[in-house]
Amino acid sequence: MTQLPIRKDLVGKSPYGAPQIAVPVRLNTNENPFGPSPELVAELAKAISEIGPKLNRYPDRDANALRADLAKYLNAESQVSLAAENIWPANGSNEVMQQLLQLFGGPDKSLVAFDPTYSMYEDYCRNTFTKYLSVARNEDFTIDKSVLDSALALQPDIIVLTSPNNPTGTIIDMSDIDYLLANFAGVLVIDEAYAEFRPAGTPSAVSRLAKNPRLVVVRTMSKAFSYAGARVGYAAASPEIVQAIQLVRLPYHLSTVTQAVARVALQFSDELQGQVTLLRRERDDLESWLKDQGFEVAPSGANFLLFGAFGDRNEVWEQLVEHGVLIRQTGPSGWLRVSIGTPEENQAFKTALLQVTNRTNGK
Amino acid sequence: MTQLPIRKDLVGKSPYGAPQIAVPVRLNTNENPFGPSPELVAELAKAISEIGPKLNRYPDRDANALRADLAKYLNAESQVSLAAENIWPANGSNEVMQQLLQLFGGPDKSLVAFDPTYSMYEDYCRNTFTKYLSVARNEDFTIDKSVLDSALALQPDIIVLTSPNNPTGTIIDMSDIDYLLANFAGVLVIDEAYAEFRPAGTPSAVSRLAKNPRLVVVRTMSKAFSYAGARVGYAAASPEIVQAIQLVRLPYHLSTVTQAVARVALQFSDELQGQVTLLRRERDDLESWLKDQGFEVAPSGANFLLFGAFGDRNEVWEQLVEHGVLIRQTGPSGWLRVSIGTPEENQAFKTALLQVTNRTNGK
Repeated sequence: MTQLPIRKDLVGKSPYGAPQIAVPVRLNTNENPFGPSPELVAELAKAISEIGPKLNRYPDRDANALRADLAKYLNAESQVSLAAENIWPANGSNEVMQQLLQLFGGPDKSLVAFDPTYSMYEDYCRNTFTKYLSVARNEDFTIDKSVLDSALALQPDIIVLTSPNNPTGTIIDMSDIDYLLANFAGVLVIDEAYAEFRPAGTPSAVSRLAKNPRLVVVRTMSKAFSYAGARVGYAAASPEIVQAIQLVRLPYHLSTVTQAVARVALQFSDELQGQVTLLRRERDDLESWLKDQGFEVAPSGANFLLFGAFGDRNEVWEQLVEHGVLIRQTGPSGWLRVSIGTPEENQAFKTALLQVTNRTNGK
Repeated sequence: MTQLPIRKDLVGKSPYGAPQIAVPVRLNTNENPFGPSPELVAELAKAISEIGPKLNRYPDRDANALRADLAKYLNAESQVSLAAENIWPANGSNEVMQQLLQLFGGPDKSLVAFDPTYSMYEDYCRNTFTKYLSVARNEDFTIDKSVLDSALALQPDIIVLTSPNNPTGTIIDMSDIDYLLANFAGVLVIDEAYAEFRPAGTPSAVSRLAKNPRLVVVRTMSKAFSYAGARVGYAAASPEIVQAIQLVRLPYHLSTVTQAVARVALQFSDELQGQVTLLRRERDDLESWLKDQGFEVAPSGANFLLFGAFGDRNEVWEQLVEHGVLIRQTGPSGWLRVSIGTPEENQAFKTALLQVTNRTNGK
């Protein structure tokens, strides 16, 4: 590979991706542990039977029906009034992010994110030749106006705020988003991949779209919709931004099948919301339990918890794998991230963690 | 939109995409006119019923099973010996092309294509900040060594040869590909989106992969597999290139559904080949007929024909639409492109064209 004339900044790099190991309990990539229901799967089969005979034709390039459905979902989920013209779907929120950087980034542009955060932002920047900058969060992973001022001082073209943040789970206060909206002239991207897991009553940044044409909120169906395998992410933004994205999107980027599959899940929003409620409760229970065992836990509004701190997190991680539980080594040194699984999976994780760390329950 | 801080080179541009008009006969985007068969659609429903319950999990990031199936298909189709490690699939060949340019292109790199050719190459370059250069084909749309020497003289990093070429249908002689392989040190991409429609016995550039680690052949399932709606394209290349692409691909770029849907169609390769044979015959018949009517026609190895020349092609195009037939205004001034449809659609096109151009059959 080193013989190939690849871009110099890619030489020696490794592809992004969590290590995948075949173990009974996989709590490493923040997947929703509940698969689509038999009723949903039956609707999928029906949908593909309907579109199958017409797959020789290109998809609806503008994905109008799906965009209308996504707008309707967001309107119910976050009490807003968006229309199809506010929505832009793609193959996962990472394609949405790449399109945003192809549009607003580039060799003479820069993006600021807040460390520790999702490591793919740096890769999106590399893919689009955009300068990646980062500002440190407070020690407890929160952000406040002084952190935001540090970001603004870098004079970036794009700011990405992740809320809830990955891998820490931290929720950004809406007043901080409002502060940026008032003080930043560039493009503000709020990555809300895990938004549906935020505590009830917490507002979403989509509530700020109506008055802010340079705000983009990115969401995904991977998590709350149990649809990581379907690869559907979307942006909610002003109609102007949605139109502009079409200058850089690849034509027919979203297949007829993906559009149909996404629309089926959206019909089941209420059913899926029940699972989200259960996962939130499991998360809160696990957070309490971890604290009871004496671990540090970052307050989380997502479907995962970052906990620690370990002198040698790699050893803990490896021993958990030996006990059949796969979690993730990510984020600040010494911390580990565990996705919230089914009640049974979470129990298996607790049991394994106690064994690995030689603690006894209730000590 | 002009108020947004978008990249300067995008200001004033329009999104790529053929105009879509609801008419009875759509021969404008080189779709295969035959939809997937009821047997294939039944297998699709079965496949989605199987994967549906597991869609909460991320896809196989490396798409190993699909890559093995694609290799097997190419081996049979072009009498080669490729393995999964030679194949890289993505959401349409345009995502493959974008990934190749993210890997081998960039601000200090350039690509050469041969005009007239597929207009998306320039867009891929724009999306990846790669300099787009072009060299004119001969007047009859062929390429020869003097044309290739003009391309080499530009010292590009990437050369893209399209065979059969879109929109002209022209096939590149294998000796010209061999000439470039012997004389070009950069990355040579042969875009074979329409390869299955080439005359029987014409070799594919995949026959040159074994000895050329910097050669990439790009194919698609959109055309021969009647799968434009499924969005599956793929590269065949050296294992080194396939590994390197993974540095720039978005993680989990290809959904579980897309992987499964593609594998179903590959099971039906033989059935689909029958339709390709019919379309080839229809193309050759239509070419003869157009010539008999006194039109110029570019020799085509694809599922479309470029014909002309018209003083006002826009008028001919508009009048055809009024007669219920949608074709494409593309390629050199005065020429029009018509996709090969079903025998009935081709007859409708002929009837409409005669009416529009005031010719009588058999004049």
